[in-house]
Amino acid sequence: MAENLVNFGILGCAKIAIKLARAINLAPNSILYAIASRSLEKAKQFATQNGLPETIKIYGSYEELLDDPSIEVVYLPLPTSLHVQWAVLAAQKKKHVLLEKPAALDVGDLDKILEACVSNGVQFLDGSMWLHHPRTMKMKELLFDSNLVGQVDFIHSSSTAKVPPEFFENNIRVKQDMDALGVLGDLGWYCVGAVLWAKNYRLPNVVSALPAGVTKNSAGIVLSCTACLNYDQDHKTVAIIHCSFFSYTSMDLSITGTQGSLHLKDFVIPYQEGSAFFDLASPATFMDDQTGWNVKTEKVVVDNETPQEALMVQELARLAQGIKKCGFPPDNRWPEISRKTQIVVDAVKKSIDLDCKPVYL
Amino acid sequence: MAENLVNFGILGCAKIAIKLARAINLAPNSILYAIASRSLEKAKQFATQNGLPETIKIYGSYEELLDDPSIEVVYLPLPTSLHVQWAVLAAQKKKHVLLEKPAALDVGDLDKILEACVSNGVQFLDGSMWLHHPRTMKMKELLFDSNLVGQVDFIHSSSTAKVPPEFFENNIRVKQDMDALGVLGDLGWYCVGAVLWAKNYRLPNVVSALPAGVTKNSAGIVLSCTACLNYDQDHKTVAIIHCSFFSYTSMDLSITGTQGSLHLKDFVIPYQEGSAFFDLASPATFMDDQTGWNVKTEKVVVDNETPQEALMVQELARLAQGIKKCGFPPDNRWPEISRKTQIVVDAVKKSIDLDCKPVYL
Repeated sequence: MAENLVNFGILGCAKIAIKLARAINLAPNSILYAIASRSLEKAKQFATQNGLPETIKIYGSYEELLDDPSIEVVYLPLPTSLHVQWAVLAAQKKKHVLLEKPAALDVGDLDKILEACVSNGVQFLDGSMWLHHPRTMKMKELLFDSNLVGQVDFIHSSSTAKVPPEFFENNIRVKQDMDALGVLGDLGWYCVGAVLWAKNYRLPNVVSALPAGVTKNSAGIVLSCTACLNYDQDHKTVAIIHCSFFSYTSMDLSITGTQGSLHLKDFVIPYQEGSAFFDLASPATFMDDQTGWNVKTEKVVVDNETPQEALMVQELARLAQGIKKCGFPPDNRWPEISRKTQIVVDAVKKSIDLDCKPVYL
Repeated sequence: MAENLVNFGILGCAKIAIKLARAINLAPNSILYAIASRSLEKAKQFATQNGLPETIKIYGSYEELLDDPSIEVVYLPLPTSLHVQWAVLAAQKKKHVLLEKPAALDVGDLDKILEACVSNGVQFLDGSMWLHHPRTMKMKELLFDSNLVGQVDFIHSSSTAKVPPEFFENNIRVKQDMDALGVLGDLGWYCVGAVLWAKNYRLPNVVSALPAGVTKNSAGIVLSCTACLNYDQDHKTVAIIHCSFFSYTSMDLSITGTQGSLHLKDFVIPYQEGSAFFDLASPATFMDDQTGWNVKTEKVVVDNETPQEALMVQELARLAQGIKKCGFPPDNRWPEISRKTQIVVDAVKKSIDLDCKPVYL
């Protein structure tokens, strides 16, 4: 237990926990201190299989880990239906909460978690890693500070990932009692998050799922979804989100504005660690004779020494240290981002449930 | 008048005619033979200002040009409301017809033109230049022949071009008696065409404009539009089209399928003449630890010695020569492509007129 490192515990041995275990140890201000599974055997196996150091504490129940006073932050890669129970308990045990997305099944559940965090003075952060990549910061700078894109007219955001056939009925992500939001929670969370991010976290006025775009499994869980998010304030913006378990991996974000446009095809997980890019066209227009463009899109490259998931961990550890050492209050921005994302995800779900009628926010 | 070159006449001196005059002379099998405007003065001015050779015949009326027996093909860059009148007359005068898009105000009008072409044995081609670029052929080859993209799940196609404020009330493209389809005819034609192209010219089952995406001027002309085209046969495909006079230049085409995806950001007019590219990701998936992708998108470069508009002219001149010299019948494929595009454009317009209710095809 190093003095200046924030101790993380991982609650549950989902596949994504491997990535986070690595991230916690890559982040310069945090260390993986303990893991827990519902069985000691499973937790031990996870530690061995993934080469975790022998110094890591291993717990055979979630409660035991939460009772360890050395643990300051808990990462919860649990099925969404378990989020309220364990995130609330973690907060009550004064642990900062890193909650895998979707944050909750609906905003009512999320509010229970956020209230527990507020009343216990702990930081909340959801697992939207891409928000912590320096590329995301650079894009925001260009979007808002330098007016290269101008007022945003149109956003297209998609996230798809092909799954094996057995996934559609058996995976926790498509089970009513586990992840009732289906693809909307797993991938749509990113698309909605990207639209909100591009609109500087203003909520859309109206959200409508598109009848053609909705596919469900036999349990009624959404497997693919296309929806329209509409902004009417100040400047009209139309955003289309698309998420699906049927297509191969894609994660497009295109933002078109009055001055130019911004494109990337790997917004959730960059093609490779260490360096990512996006394309910017501004001010894009045709040459006079319309035989070509006056500008080619510029490839803006952003290098990052630390992977985005480690930067996410680093941010949370930094906030945890600030709270502990300097008496800072928890940072409201992160839970607000999660809450707005949840509100819009809920609205898409509600529109689907209402046969794609528009839902007004 | 060279023996082996097909003689083109241009009916009208719109700005786009400059590009086509150049294209006709760049194509190896055609030559610009005459131009006509409604006034001789205007036609002469056009010829002088654009450095056309003095050998080119100049007519002060459209009828005179159509009566010139040496002219084999007529290019019509006229307001859409004039297409029926002049394209039908051109066909009756046994001229092959190169008609600027949108082909007509609706499919009823287009059928009058196509029937005139059929009954007079002349070739019809609309001005969708991008269909003639070798990049388009290469993409089709990859889409259909090699199954790199697989079954198409989702298509996003957009075309936007910012216009000056005065355009919105005065330009012919937003006038009820000139181009009543507004942005839908001018830019939406490309988006619809791209979806049909990607679906191998199957018509969608349902077309719905999205309420949030529709903006009109005071005369009711559509200035921006987002619509959903839905395919239910065999493999479900959702296509989103977006066209707008508000955003700066963008022309995105993204096709996502069960095996991979294909992206380009300049599908209507490539960034530059001579070489164009698109991005292909196949089979795209995450690395096991989800820290990156197993493949980066591949940049597929396609060089072209001849600009796409000249390739379009070349194709039409080739067909004209086949009809003249070998007695071939006109090629049905091109008018069929135009007709299907018009049917879908009409459906989007109808959905807009019906307050965005779905239109079934």
